[in-house]
Amino acid sequence: MQKTASSSTLGPDGLDIAQSFFKPIQGASPPPTTSRNTKISVVGVGNVGMAIAQTILTQALADEIALVDVNAEKLRGEMLDLQHAAAFLPRTKISASVDYSSTLASDLVIVTAGARQIPGESRLNLLQRNLALFSKMIPPLAAGSPETIMLIVSNPVDVLTYVAWKLSGFPSNRVIGSGTNLDSSRFRFLIADHLDLNAQDVQAYIIGEHGDSSVALWSSISVGGVPILSFLERQQIACEKHTLEKIHREVVEGAYEVIRLKGYTSWAIGYSVASLARSILRDQRSIHPVSVLAKGFYGIDGDGVGEPFLSLPAQLGRSGVLGVTNIHLTEDEAKQLQESAKTILEVQSQLGI
Amino acid sequence: MQKTASSSTLGPDGLDIAQSFFKPIQGASPPPTTSRNTKISVVGVGNVGMAIAQTILTQALADEIALVDVNAEKLRGEMLDLQHAAAFLPRTKISASVDYSSTLASDLVIVTAGARQIPGESRLNLLQRNLALFSKMIPPLAAGSPETIMLIVSNPVDVLTYVAWKLSGFPSNRVIGSGTNLDSSRFRFLIADHLDLNAQDVQAYIIGEHGDSSVALWSSISVGGVPILSFLERQQIACEKHTLEKIHREVVEGAYEVIRLKGYTSWAIGYSVASLARSILRDQRSIHPVSVLAKGFYGIDGDGVGEPFLSLPAQLGRSGVLGVTNIHLTEDEAKQLQESAKTILEVQSQLGI
Amino acid sequence: MQKTASSSTLGPDGLDIAQSFFKPIQGASPPPTTSRNTKISVVGVGNVGMAIAQTILTQALADEIALVDVNAEKLRGEMLDLQHAAAFLPRTKISASVDYSSTLASDLVIVTAGARQIPGESRLNLLQRNLALFSKMIPPLAAGSPETIMLIVSNPVDVLTYVAWKLSGFPSNRVIGSGTNLDSSRFRFLIADHLDLNAQDVQAYIIGEHGDSSVALWSSISVGGVPILSFLERQQIACEKHTLEKIHREVVEGAYEVIRLKGYTSWAIGYSVASLARSILRDQRSIHPVSVLAKGFYGIDGDGVGEPFLSLPAQLGRSGVLGVTNIHLTEDEAKQLQESAKTILEVQSQLGI
Amino acid sequence: MQKTASSSTLGPDGLDIAQSFFKPIQGASPPPTTSRNTKISVVGVGNVGMAIAQTILTQALADEIALVDVNAEKLRGEMLDLQHAAAFLPRTKISASVDYSSTLASDLVIVTAGARQIPGESRLNLLQRNLALFSKMIPPLAAGSPETIMLIVSNPVDVLTYVAWKLSGFPSNRVIGSGTNLDSSRFRFLIADHLDLNAQDVQAYIIGEHGDSSVALWSSISVGGVPILSFLERQQIACEKHTLEKIHREVVEGAYEVIRLKGYTSWAIGYSVASLARSILRDQRSIHPVSVLAKGFYGIDGDGVGEPFLSLPAQLGRSGVLGVTNIHLTEDEAKQLQESAKTILEVQSQLGI
Repeated sequence: MQKTASSSTLGPDGLDIAQSFFKPIQGASPPPTTSRNTKISVVGVGNVGMAIAQTILTQALADEIALVDVNAEKLRGEMLDLQHAAAFLPRTKISASVDYSSTLASDLVIVTAGARQIPGESRLNLLQRNLALFSKMIPPLAAGSPETIMLIVSNPVDVLTYVAWKLSGFPSNRVIGSGTNLDSSRFRFLIADHLDLNAQDVQAYIIGEHGDSSVALWSSISVGGVPILSFLERQQIACEKHTLEKIHREVVEGAYEVIRLKGYTSWAIGYSVASLARSILRDQRSIHPVSVLAKGFYGIDGDGVGEPFLSLPAQLGRSGVLGVTNIHLTEDEAKQLQESAKTILEVQSQLGI
Repeated sequence: MQKTASSSTLGPDGLDIAQSFFKPIQGASPPPTTSRNTKISVVGVGNVGMAIAQTILTQALADEIALVDVNAEKLRGEMLDLQHAAAFLPRTKISASVDYSSTLASDLVIVTAGARQIPGESRLNLLQRNLALFSKMIPPLAAGSPETIMLIVSNPVDVLTYVAWKLSGFPSNRVIGSGTNLDSSRFRFLIADHLDLNAQDVQAYIIGEHGDSSVALWSSISVGGVPILSFLERQQIACEKHTLEKIHREVVEGAYEVIRLKGYTSWAIGYSVASLARSILRDQRSIHPVSVLAKGFYGIDGDGVGEPFLSLPAQLGRSGVLGVTNIHLTEDEAKQLQESAKTILEVQSQLGI
Repeated sequence: MQKTASSSTLGPDGLDIAQSFFKPIQGASPPPTTSRNTKISVVGVGNVGMAIAQTILTQALADEIALVDVNAEKLRGEMLDLQHAAAFLPRTKISASVDYSSTLASDLVIVTAGARQIPGESRLNLLQRNLALFSKMIPPLAAGSPETIMLIVSNPVDVLTYVAWKLSGFPSNRVIGSGTNLDSSRFRFLIADHLDLNAQDVQAYIIGEHGDSSVALWSSISVGGVPILSFLERQQIACEKHTLEKIHREVVEGAYEVIRLKGYTSWAIGYSVASLARSILRDQRSIHPVSVLAKGFYGIDGDGVGEPFLSLPAQLGRSGVLGVTNIHLTEDEAKQLQESAKTILEVQSQLGI
Repeated sequence: MQKTASSSTLGPDGLDIAQSFFKPIQGASPPPTTSRNTKISVVGVGNVGMAIAQTILTQALADEIALVDVNAEKLRGEMLDLQHAAAFLPRTKISASVDYSSTLASDLVIVTAGARQIPGESRLNLLQRNLALFSKMIPPLAAGSPETIMLIVSNPVDVLTYVAWKLSGFPSNRVIGSGTNLDSSRFRFLIADHLDLNAQDVQAYIIGEHGDSSVALWSSISVGGVPILSFLERQQIACEKHTLEKIHREVVEGAYEVIRLKGYTSWAIGYSVASLARSILRDQRSIHPVSVLAKGFYGIDGDGVGEPFLSLPAQLGRSGVLGVTNIHLTEDEAKQLQESAKTILEVQSQLGI
């Protein structure tokens, strides 16, 4: 596909300038193994998919990026637009195809495709349509890259990560949802902006469902080694419940506000997913709140049958989810998280997979 | 404006947590000069403006990015979307305002705003509307940042760079058009893709008007120290004129093709302008084909009166355009360039400024 | 100085190829202000100074690096060795001189020069020799860059930072010692290595004197939102005092061990100081444990007269030290810190400045 | 080995805090293949080896760096010094061992170890000692990483690359000498410094033997699309032979000068080799003048028997040497190159392998 752009030739038929420009040395032999280039596939080239692809390209996280979408024209336009920047970037092979086979042997498959809500459509109906979409999409992706990590970004992310896990047949550590990684960055930004400091000095997590029932872990916020709740206490700064709730609400409403103002979200989710891609592919063993199989954690027992996916602080590395942090939750936080799990399980149970 | 997002407070009125979180050391005094942070303003937050702003943010080229647009809602949405990524990026202050005063003391002002063509509208009429727009925009931008470099991206870029130069009253080295920097990257990509090598090993320039009359400098293409034209000759690979023209056409049509396929261009122009921003602000003394005051170069005499802006290989650094490369043009190339200049001068002469 | 390497000319006398290679455009004018390039000076080109300079160069933190040392030969050798890498790096002007005037108008002056201990020499005698050295060095550095930030790396760093502050006449926020920023990184590495996770997920501080009396803030360690001490408690993992002390001892002895094994330390201090340079010059508002004027913090009253410098968690930005974090110390930690301060004050009082 | 530094435990015997800090999720399974982390081994931790290792670490080119040397103390000191910077860098596993088995499954093995010349020792004797050293070193390195690329930096680099090729039994495309990649960077710096422009805008190659008989390809120098030799001609700037020779001499003597001034070279060779590592491991398909099996190129026929390694402009990618550029040499340049080959072949023939 990449070659498509250069159907022209510098020389006439039968004479290949490329062949005469470089000559192989004697005794050279092809690479003994299949190529070990790092390959990332991005499925869905809407605003979210392209912000992810472009951020991954800028940060040189992959040697090859394969774009997939059903819209062949849009797809080719996006590929060309990225390729045209070749002179400004490290060399990255960029391909684009409507065919899943182009994702063969990916190290990471990022799924951003999803059905859009039709005005008046019920949430369940939308989900059924997404289920149908994933049923067509996930099996060929999994078959083409049986050792890949799958990173689901499409919404509702928790349920769709569960769906992708079921459809892929992958072990649970290799199917991850982008979850509340972005919500947590919003949370850190709001805290950092308030204290006028660098957001990277703030440890703070939003966990649970990516959405209205997410849980802000106030008790675990630490800024430069200072736990915020006990700091407020010691400073005798009254910290009323409604104030904390207001900040949490700002985080939850952040996405809605951006969508209301500009029509969609793109940049922040692009950076968020690129940060996950880096932690996974460069084996960073970093902690990110992402959607994982949560059964057995924090009193989430999955009712004996259900297997809820929701965001917990997970350590990510080359083999996907390495583990979940044994964080201490207050009774209230644990209860909220369990409610979050229950909500998700109810939706899952309606899917019939 | 940045503070807007955090109107909530962690503590009740009258007690500022930020003030008690950090305490100043004794004997501290404010910075003796005005802040020397690097500030870039981006005027216009459409697809092009935002691709530029986001690439600049990812590449950490500025300590402060000020976004300006007339659409307050879209503007705030884009600001929030970038700010929400704070935890994944080096700290950069991002502000947004409909008011030009927010661009005060910029080191670089990038103008991407422009009127869109109304179906059936004549090119001249469109230009007159853009002239009206620039007449309102450039003077306050120039007044607010009298020492800034101004980088014009709006189309038709050559004429509008001339307009910005006239309206700003700036010396010519501080008003630059993005010109054929992107066309040249497309040219390098096509050549590199054909030879299957890294585009950064290709020296190749498109100069002249950014558009249909641009000039491909075939005689100056060098790949890894090999001048392509004489290579073809020595290899007895016939290099027919129509083949070269076909490649040039692909470059010229590259932008049109992307627009036809995805509706607009964004990523490549984002990387292209970020590369210019880096060369300027980090004083790289790099050579870029950009739109500059071309009078006196390569037989362009400007009719005694006119002052055409078009792309020439220019060296860029902290004070803007440092000089123009004394490249050797074939007779044919020089003639094409002079035609390019004539076309532009005719348009300029109709503007009445 | 940079030009020295190219005393040869491509053309014969009287004809400057550089002048004919680039031609200025018409109407260009010189930059209206003095150049605003970011300039870092590194004083002392031993193993520490050069590891700092090279890391700053690799990370492209400055547009200009000025090296200063008394050993003209070594100095020129190091400059050439860095310059020879020009084709692999963003363009950075690298100069070298035995004359302090080469540091003129620096944004950051990093001092690594210091006398070496003569076998059998008393600590006080060594300090007196360093005081003599600083008395010759600091005044011209301060005079040449009256608005610079001064970053002291020479040992004993706390006392020499005090000395530099006194000799410079600078406000306290613009004289900083590298202090325990590196000790804290060693601390984070040991904790992260033990837990097999990314050191950047660990918040942990060593404060106080850079040396044997430093204070490990166990109560403030937080890993991914989990405060370690209370985690151990909840897990009923006995955490005996001697175990904690053993880890702290490993940190303190880390530098001695590296010196014993390879003869000196270089890489880690290079990265540590580069991280400080980034936080300062790119206005990151990040928290670093560095040596600052500590009077008035945590019960350090400075005896009414003394003004001790020691490491506290400080927020760094473009104007130097922005403030000190109001961290909660246990009674024991506070007491250790006050002892640390007393030790330093005693040494300072013997200096007679 | 990495774990050595943390022999201490946070908890008492029998209770592993790491195990209780993270808990695996249900249904997780180990990675299906052997880890695909990118691993670079650096053999020899002298000034050159460590400058390479540290630059690779700063540029995050590998997920794992294995250091090997015969001096266990120095080795451990260097490992600790790099590890102590963990908090300032992306996570990279750093190990160190006197045992070659630590290099198992490397993607790239960089050899910097070599015998030092004893005063009065003949060049041939030194080479024989290096041959003995390589005979012990190369076979276990090749056996441990049968699919690796081998990059030889030890001097005399051309002959030792040949030796490594012979001893490894590898195909020729997977044994590369650092050759004149650094000489070419020095050449570009001198030209760029003279013209006061960015060295990355200069295409210029030194090829042949890394040393006194190297060949400067004047005819292939191109600066921003301007071939320098014909530029001088057109500008009627006399370009006398002795001037060109003087510049070439500066390049050749650059290494000697740095060694005379500071005792050794380190930084520039570190950046040079890191640039090769990037082109190889990130499959950049970039052109670098490096030492390759040159038989059959440019009239080098190898006397029917010999197989000379010397530097030619080669394209590097994930499988090593992809090809050699079909550059045009003047008759004089070709003759010099052939002389260079003859010199090297004579030395090789004395080795008896």
